[in-house]
Amino acid sequence: MSLTIKLQHVVNNTHVNPTTTTATAIKKTRSATKLHSKPIYHTNPLSPLALTRTRKMQSLPRNPPMVVKSSLIDPDGGSLVDLAVPEGKRAERIAAAEKMPKVKLTRIDLEWVHVIGEGWASPLKGFMREDEYLQSLHFNCLRMKDGSFVNMSLPIVLGVDDGVKEEIGGSDSVALVGPGGDLVAILTSIEIFKHNKEERIARTWGTTAPGLPYVDEAIAQAGNWLVGGDLEVINPIKYNDGLDNYRLSPKQLRAEFDKREADAVFAFQLRNPVHNGHALLMNDTRKRLLDMGFKNPILLLHPLGGFTKADDVPLDVRMEQHSKVLEDGILDPETTIVAIFPSPMLYAGPTEVQWHAKARLNAGANFYIVGRDPAGMAHPTEKRDLYDPDHGKKVLSMAPGLEKLNILPFRVAAYDTVAKKMAFFEPSRAKDFLFISGTKMRTYARTGENPPDGFMCPGGWQVLVKYYESLQAEDSPTKQTVNA
Amino acid sequence: MSLTIKLQHVVNNTHVNPTTTTATAIKKTRSATKLHSKPIYHTNPLSPLALTRTRKMQSLPRNPPMVVKSSLIDPDGGSLVDLAVPEGKRAERIAAAEKMPKVKLTRIDLEWVHVIGEGWASPLKGFMREDEYLQSLHFNCLRMKDGSFVNMSLPIVLGVDDGVKEEIGGSDSVALVGPGGDLVAILTSIEIFKHNKEERIARTWGTTAPGLPYVDEAIAQAGNWLVGGDLEVINPIKYNDGLDNYRLSPKQLRAEFDKREADAVFAFQLRNPVHNGHALLMNDTRKRLLDMGFKNPILLLHPLGGFTKADDVPLDVRMEQHSKVLEDGILDPETTIVAIFPSPMLYAGPTEVQWHAKARLNAGANFYIVGRDPAGMAHPTEKRDLYDPDHGKKVLSMAPGLEKLNILPFRVAAYDTVAKKMAFFEPSRAKDFLFISGTKMRTYARTGENPPDGFMCPGGWQVLVKYYESLQAEDSPTKQTVNA
Repeated sequence: MSLTIKLQHVVNNTHVNPTTTTATAIKKTRSATKLHSKPIYHTNPLSPLALTRTRKMQSLPRNPPMVVKSSLIDPDGGSLVDLAVPEGKRAERIAAAEKMPKVKLTRIDLEWVHVIGEGWASPLKGFMREDEYLQSLHFNCLRMKDGSFVNMSLPIVLGVDDGVKEEIGGSDSVALVGPGGDLVAILTSIEIFKHNKEERIARTWGTTAPGLPYVDEAIAQAGNWLVGGDLEVINPIKYNDGLDNYRLSPKQLRAEFDKREADAVFAFQLRNPVHNGHALLMNDTRKRLLDMGFKNPILLLHPLGGFTKADDVPLDVRMEQHSKVLEDGILDPETTIVAIFPSPMLYAGPTEVQWHAKARLNAGANFYIVGRDPAGMAHPTEKRDLYDPDHGKKVLSMAPGLEKLNILPFRVAAYDTVAKKMAFFEPSRAKDFLFISGTKMRTYARTGENPPDGFMCPGGWQVLVKYYESLQAEDSPTKQTVNA
Repeated sequence: MSLTIKLQHVVNNTHVNPTTTTATAIKKTRSATKLHSKPIYHTNPLSPLALTRTRKMQSLPRNPPMVVKSSLIDPDGGSLVDLAVPEGKRAERIAAAEKMPKVKLTRIDLEWVHVIGEGWASPLKGFMREDEYLQSLHFNCLRMKDGSFVNMSLPIVLGVDDGVKEEIGGSDSVALVGPGGDLVAILTSIEIFKHNKEERIARTWGTTAPGLPYVDEAIAQAGNWLVGGDLEVINPIKYNDGLDNYRLSPKQLRAEFDKREADAVFAFQLRNPVHNGHALLMNDTRKRLLDMGFKNPILLLHPLGGFTKADDVPLDVRMEQHSKVLEDGILDPETTIVAIFPSPMLYAGPTEVQWHAKARLNAGANFYIVGRDPAGMAHPTEKRDLYDPDHGKKVLSMAPGLEKLNILPFRVAAYDTVAKKMAFFEPSRAKDFLFISGTKMRTYARTGENPPDGFMCPGGWQVLVKYYESLQAEDSPTKQTVNA
């Protein structure tokens, strides 16, 4: 709460208009937010957007829920799901929740409550019941009453153990409480069904090898039952990490696109720092859209904000890095919106990339950029990529329910050692190109070695170097002794 | 060939009309076919159908291929695929095949050539290329050019190893040869892509546990590449097991349904002997269809004829058992067609049941009976069913592309110890009912113990007893010594 006020203060001082964000404005914002007690990379360089949200939160009528439609692309199911309990009904629902059996949520469960509640998974209105679960698992899509299909590649489910199932008994509803015991949401008209973990894992990941990050974190310890039902979110999910104002809902993003009069929105999903190859690609996409005749294409730079595996760069560092990329003019702040996608990361390759695209469709993006091996990782037990790097874009282009979304496959970018910059790979002079993998990039940053000139803007690179230095400090012998 | 002539002879003697098959006619047929050198259970008790086929094979114009439509249900893709090379083009195609790289087929590959060639998998026109493979694996369906979906839950693919891939080189076509080296078919406009076995297994079976029968038999030894392309079948697949005349193609089945003026066709997939519970169900289904107003519902009793696991009852024994069930009047020969479904069995539960239904849709059935745990088996390494017994029928009712097929879920039948017969289970007097599993049934037959009266017709039961006796004779110590 105090952060919101600070930001509002900052923006009031700088009079930034969301459509005229400049590097100067960003700098002012940054220096102001240095007052905040969190580390420097917790600042909000793009606070104008954050402000947009703050204003909206105060002015938008929450009851009845608005049907937000975009001029660019309809949400799945026709209207955007919004499961926040209206202000006027909150007291009644809280009182009702107190009498219900309680289900305690993990951090990842909370992320899903956030995702479902804001309509990223529209038309899904709660944790999946068995019919939705089975359709998702077997068909990666849900059939609507009119016979059409919407994409839904990931099972979004809530696990409970035998004890909790027992407590729920024959109750029709349960209250969902956060890890600290705070009431978060209600699930009504519930259905409890078996959680066959092996089958869920095999069909979602195409492997059951040990060491899948999401499986280890979220499935292995989950109960042997799943509880589905209709969700009512009593308290909107906040993370209090200094970044909540970047967590724009699909409704807010759609409003922002409309306000900016975007005639095309192209989304870029990422969970890594932005290097100049990514930037080249995003800028090139904008150029292609202009060439197609669009007048005002807007880039949604949309880092994933939920659970990621331990060796990924954390969200706050990435946000700071992204801000440098805009500050250094590598991406144009005038035509870019940076916001956080609240979903956890599953590293489920071709299955997950559909979710990444579908959620952005719901947020109003009508173009989706897909790269090599999206949502992929190394096989946890074999020396190879878990997924064929080309399958992600192929599966995405075939996915039922995503026909209305324009899929823009990546051109491969690499470091051109002649031009000394990131450039689109030219097979005719392959020897001039240097591929710098995520692992290689992390090694550079960790060892303090600089990557080739032009790989990443210096400001962005320094953010990474500082992060890895802080890690090494944490890993120092003294610290280890304390932990041991 | 000699068998075909014999059968024709038999039928000429008895003047059986396919629509007036009677127990008497069956008995005459049986006694005549005893001349055949194969064991007794190789006889063809329903030869009128076989004859129908024999006549058709001689009279149907093979060139140009007929577009067979049924008045009851259209094949997937609108017209039935028939990939047999027309007689007039055969010499040319054989000559062309001789110059092509050769791919040697396994027995199961041959079964798939049979399946694809006759249009069971319509609109599939050959072994899958990667785009079909990926759609099958991820979505269990294929998108057609008009945007509609057809169901296709199993990857139908052809594996080749590194050596064969090398030999194929840049060739556009390959010749497919049988296990004995005989030319079977051609694959044109081929595409070779990676065979990620782990992913294929995980997404098809929902487990990667060792001991899945089809995986052990057909995938483990297969090469690391898949070759897809357009199939041309030069020599129709024959098994020379005395049962080829039961192997009616979808085209022949559709013609037969039309000839019988069926106004509803209900298919019953099975890989087990028919007990009186099954019969009750089939007879009850017919009654329900009559109650619905249909005048002439025809049952397609459709045992699976391809690969099955070692402890399943072999096809020839099952066919003999089925014949007894008709002979004993448990099922009505007047309104039943018995034919063999040439597909191999994958034991892939909810994924496979879609294939079982889709193939019968292509063969003209517009009703499909689905039971408990279709295509299921015990988990290969854990003490539980591999699939939730209810998932098969649930998934089938949701499957994209199967909307036009009427799914008829089983009512559970069990042995009523009061009425001393198989009856629909009544939960209110559960204690009166005895469930006799396949394993229990096999134990009875193996130990020579009789099942309760009314479980199976005596003639059918004797077929099983004789089969298990023959197994025990084979397993005798003398035999084992010889094998050791």
